[in-house]
Amino acid sequence: MAKPTPLSGFPEWLPAQRIVEQQILRIIQDTFELHGFAGIETRAVEPMDQLLRKGETSKEVYVLNRLQATEEQDSSKDKQLGLHFDLTVPFARYVLENAGHLAFPFKRYQIQKVWRGERPQDGRFREFYQADIDVVDAGELPFHYEVELPLVMAEAFAKLRPLGVPEFKVLVNNRKVAEGFYRGLGLDDVEGVLRNIDKLDKIGPEKVAALLIDEVGASQQQAQLCLDLASISGSDETVIDRVRELAAANNVSHELLDTGLDELGALLRSASRRAPGTIEANLKIARGLDYYTGSVYESVLIGHEDLGSICSGGRYDTLASDGKNTYPGVGLSIGVSRLVSRLLSKNIVTSSRSVPTAVLVAVMDEEHREDAQAIAAQLRARGISTDVAPVAAKFGKQIKFADRRGIPFVWFPAGVNQNGEQITHQVKDIRTGEQVEADPTVWTPQEQDLIPAVRAAE
Amino acid sequence: MAKPTPLSGFPEWLPAQRIVEQQILRIIQDTFELHGFAGIETRAVEPMDQLLRKGETSKEVYVLNRLQATEEQDSSKDKQLGLHFDLTVPFARYVLENAGHLAFPFKRYQIQKVWRGERPQDGRFREFYQADIDVVDAGELPFHYEVELPLVMAEAFAKLRPLGVPEFKVLVNNRKVAEGFYRGLGLDDVEGVLRNIDKLDKIGPEKVAALLIDEVGASQQQAQLCLDLASISGSDETVIDRVRELAAANNVSHELLDTGLDELGALLRSASRRAPGTIEANLKIARGLDYYTGSVYESVLIGHEDLGSICSGGRYDTLASDGKNTYPGVGLSIGVSRLVSRLLSKNIVTSSRSVPTAVLVAVMDEEHREDAQAIAAQLRARGISTDVAPVAAKFGKQIKFADRRGIPFVWFPAGVNQNGEQITHQVKDIRTGEQVEADPTVWTPQEQDLIPAVRAAE
Repeated sequence: MAKPTPLSGFPEWLPAQRIVEQQILRIIQDTFELHGFAGIETRAVEPMDQLLRKGETSKEVYVLNRLQATEEQDSSKDKQLGLHFDLTVPFARYVLENAGHLAFPFKRYQIQKVWRGERPQDGRFREFYQADIDVVDAGELPFHYEVELPLVMAEAFAKLRPLGVPEFKVLVNNRKVAEGFYRGLGLDDVEGVLRNIDKLDKIGPEKVAALLIDEVGASQQQAQLCLDLASISGSDETVIDRVRELAAANNVSHELLDTGLDELGALLRSASRRAPGTIEANLKIARGLDYYTGSVYESVLIGHEDLGSICSGGRYDTLASDGKNTYPGVGLSIGVSRLVSRLLSKNIVTSSRSVPTAVLVAVMDEEHREDAQAIAAQLRARGISTDVAPVAAKFGKQIKFADRRGIPFVWFPAGVNQNGEQITHQVKDIRTGEQVEADPTVWTPQEQDLIPAVRAAE
Repeated sequence: MAKPTPLSGFPEWLPAQRIVEQQILRIIQDTFELHGFAGIETRAVEPMDQLLRKGETSKEVYVLNRLQATEEQDSSKDKQLGLHFDLTVPFARYVLENAGHLAFPFKRYQIQKVWRGERPQDGRFREFYQADIDVVDAGELPFHYEVELPLVMAEAFAKLRPLGVPEFKVLVNNRKVAEGFYRGLGLDDVEGVLRNIDKLDKIGPEKVAALLIDEVGASQQQAQLCLDLASISGSDETVIDRVRELAAANNVSHELLDTGLDELGALLRSASRRAPGTIEANLKIARGLDYYTGSVYESVLIGHEDLGSICSGGRYDTLASDGKNTYPGVGLSIGVSRLVSRLLSKNIVTSSRSVPTAVLVAVMDEEHREDAQAIAAQLRARGISTDVAPVAAKFGKQIKFADRRGIPFVWFPAGVNQNGEQITHQVKDIRTGEQVEADPTVWTPQEQDLIPAVRAAE
């Protein structure tokens, strides 16, 4: 067959790149588990009627058909399956399906691929990894989780910094603040206002004001006040004071506004004590999805603002409902592929190896292959990733085999070497050229050499 | 919405079950990495023309269509995409696509879900995990990898034994032995013989003999000798002697038979030294796929032979070819979901927890929530998975929260406790009831309590 070509929108990584992705995924997962989130996986498919709820038809869903299925089998609409386009819809379904077997509040993480048939472009894929955390409760969900969850994400990104991942900041707003402010101002089409405020970065304040006047029926002054609110940002509580001043100066008051400001203030206070500088209020954050009801989160990678938000989410009073019970939740989702793709394509982060291997055991001649394998087994028993040379080539060629893959150590087994000399076990650090005698039952590399070093590219 | 029901063939696990699956996947992955296999992932989709190569049309492929795509966009056959039904076809494509960037021999592992639209039944799913290892080389692939790879799988399963996974055995045969024997016997329709020998377990020797006579044109005696060969099995080299004797006694000789017996003998010799009792020759192993050209592997879980092979594979001289270069390979694939589903459905293996959490920090009252969070942060900094109670309920209720999830320790922060007494930091092992003073900056649970215990159910 001819050489295949990549499929646009379906990223795949070379082995060294995959090591970068794996270490990032592992750090994210470990952070989630450290905070007590239970890992679940849901199937890749959902019934189409599930996927098309909540006005999500704008997402391009991939619909499945079995190649050999008869027309009759696949025609009934309710059985038609599609690939999930996020991890929230499947999670809501999972909660309802298993509610009787789950302990609430239920903290879960989910790291899986999702699919969207959208036109691929920079940072937008048709297949990509998401890493989600959500807390869902039955009936009531305590507010403090709205503080906890963005801090968990901030912690995960802080742990990615040593790998060369740029600085990360969570931007937070509160739907109640926005809604209370608009209603207090006399604008009851809250969704209409939010939808237009959401366009601020794209079209600028003047055009947003015009839209608020034309589409939402705002007066010139109401539109200006919406823009004034959206212009407020900062990481300390003075943000709350500024909103209160703006409202007071214009006789805007509403119960929701007060509740929202209390919540936003509590979040900023707690965040500034526990993780200073990682969370910032930004009153223009709107988030398109209409089911958010409290805190809403976006985030930026400093220096890569053009990527858009790589970690977003919010609080929703109704993640799921089966008529009897309602399940409120709060959650955030990292766009892992978008992040990894940027780190790799801009050569920001690299791996020192294309394999997990720390040691290559050289093979003197094919008759002594089992000696080499015995040494490898001894090293592996201590958790050292070890490979054995594929053929008993000249040692120079075997060293080259290691070098090509970034394997730092080559082990020369005791015996008669290729120059006819009797040698003891020796191990060579091929980065420095240093070669020392070593005992396969005790020798261990330094911890930082056990796994590939993933770090900022130089 | 109404309570959703599971989709047949798409297994999903509850949190405690998922912990079992996660630990099994982690052990498998760690074993692969310890042996120097590089982890790659391929996209879930392949062009349909790739998926339908190699006479694999018997597999029920899921074809994708975009919901909002126009007829015109999706009609051209060559661009149609389907979900991969194994990890071998995508790997072959990956090797060809990236050959210029890969170092050969290339050892890779791949742990991903695959999809088949077949009718679901016990142990057969429409979505399931496979865990594959393959070594692929450019041009020539040394034989010793045919010894290495089944031993890696045996090692992975040996490491699963402490979790309660039943004993595992690899059954091996060599295509050259079978082909050489049949040809030496005068039967040139090798595929025809293999296809019928493959039915031995299902229909028994008499019916297989009848089919060999009717379909392949064997004589009564030839058919009997094929059955005699298939009846030979054992884990030591006497197996080789028995085949040689059978051949000699019936004047059967062929170069391929000799080569195959040498290889099979070398494999058994090496395996019996390095992992005694884990590999057994079984001359009836045929494997349906016609691209195998050397060693072929199946495996059994002792006591669960009805499950069929949960780890299979073989050697193929042409994994991929682009006309210029040919890439021979050898690989095995574990049917992880089939394994995990059996372990869970028969209650063979369980997890002690439904969460990763080792410690729950109790909350005295909501005003002291941040104290609890500070303690949690101290524990997490030492790698201890820690949660904080969701509400400042009575301590009895908070202990119950931990107990329901299998969390072994509850931490009571220093301060005035709920009975009005001044206490120091204390930690309670709720399994034993033992409660001791503890310092959040140094206290660490025993290693076996750090993560959920996955073990044989009692």
